[in-house]
Amino acid sequence: MSLKIYGLAMSTNTTRAMICLHEKEVDFELVPVNVFASEHKHPPFLNKNPFGLIPVLEDGDLTLFESRAITSYVAEKFKEVGADLIRQNDIKESSLVKMWIEVESQYYEPAVSSIIYEYFVAPFKGQEPNKSVIESNIEKLKSVLDVYEAKLSRTKYLGGDFYSLADLSHISETHYLMQTPCGSMINERPHVKGWWEDISSRPAFQKVVEGMTFGQTQK
Amino acid sequence: MSLKIYGLAMSTNTTRAMICLHEKEVDFELVPVNVFASEHKHPPFLNKNPFGLIPVLEDGDLTLFESRAITSYVAEKFKEVGADLIRQNDIKESSLVKMWIEVESQYYEPAVSSIIYEYFVAPFKGQEPNKSVIESNIEKLKSVLDVYEAKLSRTKYLGGDFYSLADLSHISETHYLMQTPCGSMINERPHVKGWWEDISSRPAFQKVVEGMTFGQTQK
Repeated sequence: MSLKIYGLAMSTNTTRAMICLHEKEVDFELVPVNVFASEHKHPPFLNKNPFGLIPVLEDGDLTLFESRAITSYVAEKFKEVGADLIRQNDIKESSLVKMWIEVESQYYEPAVSSIIYEYFVAPFKGQEPNKSVIESNIEKLKSVLDVYEAKLSRTKYLGGDFYSLADLSHISETHYLMQTPCGSMINERPHVKGWWEDISSRPAFQKVVEGMTFGQTQK
Repeated sequence: MSLKIYGLAMSTNTTRAMICLHEKEVDFELVPVNVFASEHKHPPFLNKNPFGLIPVLEDGDLTLFESRAITSYVAEKFKEVGADLIRQNDIKESSLVKMWIEVESQYYEPAVSSIIYEYFVAPFKGQEPNKSVIESNIEKLKSVLDVYEAKLSRTKYLGGDFYSLADLSHISETHYLMQTPCGSMINERPHVKGWWEDISSRPAFQKVVEGMTFGQTQK
């Protein structure tokens, strides 16, 4: 029985999990959840994730939610296939991978998702993007990207000189960020730009990017 | 050479790391960082954590920031000592531990820390607690705690019938929450109440609780 991902092909959190599954060449089925009809806020979906959020992974009798817990599980279960995304055999490297996943989750993603919301979701709701929200998140993102630029001038990837979940975790939201005027913040920093071009050209991401259509009709 | 934790004995994030070190009976030194004088926002601290936040762990040539990356590293490095906090030998259990750490980090902590801020930090700054901020975070916390109550009626701890980092991660912020009127939200839910009494009575927490004095002078 193949693994199931309940989610949405255009969602950043769903594609975070899907990119990891593709890196590991795992056979899986994407089961669409109609979030526009609030399917995720009612049973039976709430039995899978009581917090009512996508994605959810089902693998036999295991049900997992939270995309970063899912990618960690997939990277460990299929560690023999493809790139070693968690560096489990080296406790220092694996700790640095976890540390940079925390950085993505706590600092990078909140700023980027706020910017994406204003440029993609607000127009969809017939609202003007809120300039002060965009400005304050640009400031936050600048500080984060300055740290990234310094780090990526010393090592090829965030965790070290190896591609890992720390890098993979950034791909989905950065893809949408690049479609906003704030994409210039990536391009203005040469090491961040090179890193983004590297990680976004991986075949695993190319397999999901076609489905990432959010904003294409409403822009 | 013993491990060093750079931080503050009253900080929730610093004590999260310290509780884990005590669970593992690790010899460590707490190096105080004077955050009230913004020591963490300047070199040499910024060389340890370019994001300018406490705590930071130093173990030989390894420098780690982000408290949940630190606890994960400590739990793995000292896995032979004390409780098995990450269930590394069972991939399903370890994934559920990671999933509930994400829940703590993404839903529980943001609501609790906002409430703590209003009751502890605002008065310290000579401001009245913002009632609408408190109210909105009470609503968020209610939803989270209702899920916890259902989960803890089925298993003794969040990850399953074993104490883990998922539970440990909650202790510091819940300790301060219990000193606000919102502590009743824990006590009103019998399984959450029993869980809190259990995890807060562990000797590892008792070793740090004396230093958690934030709010004692300004209340």
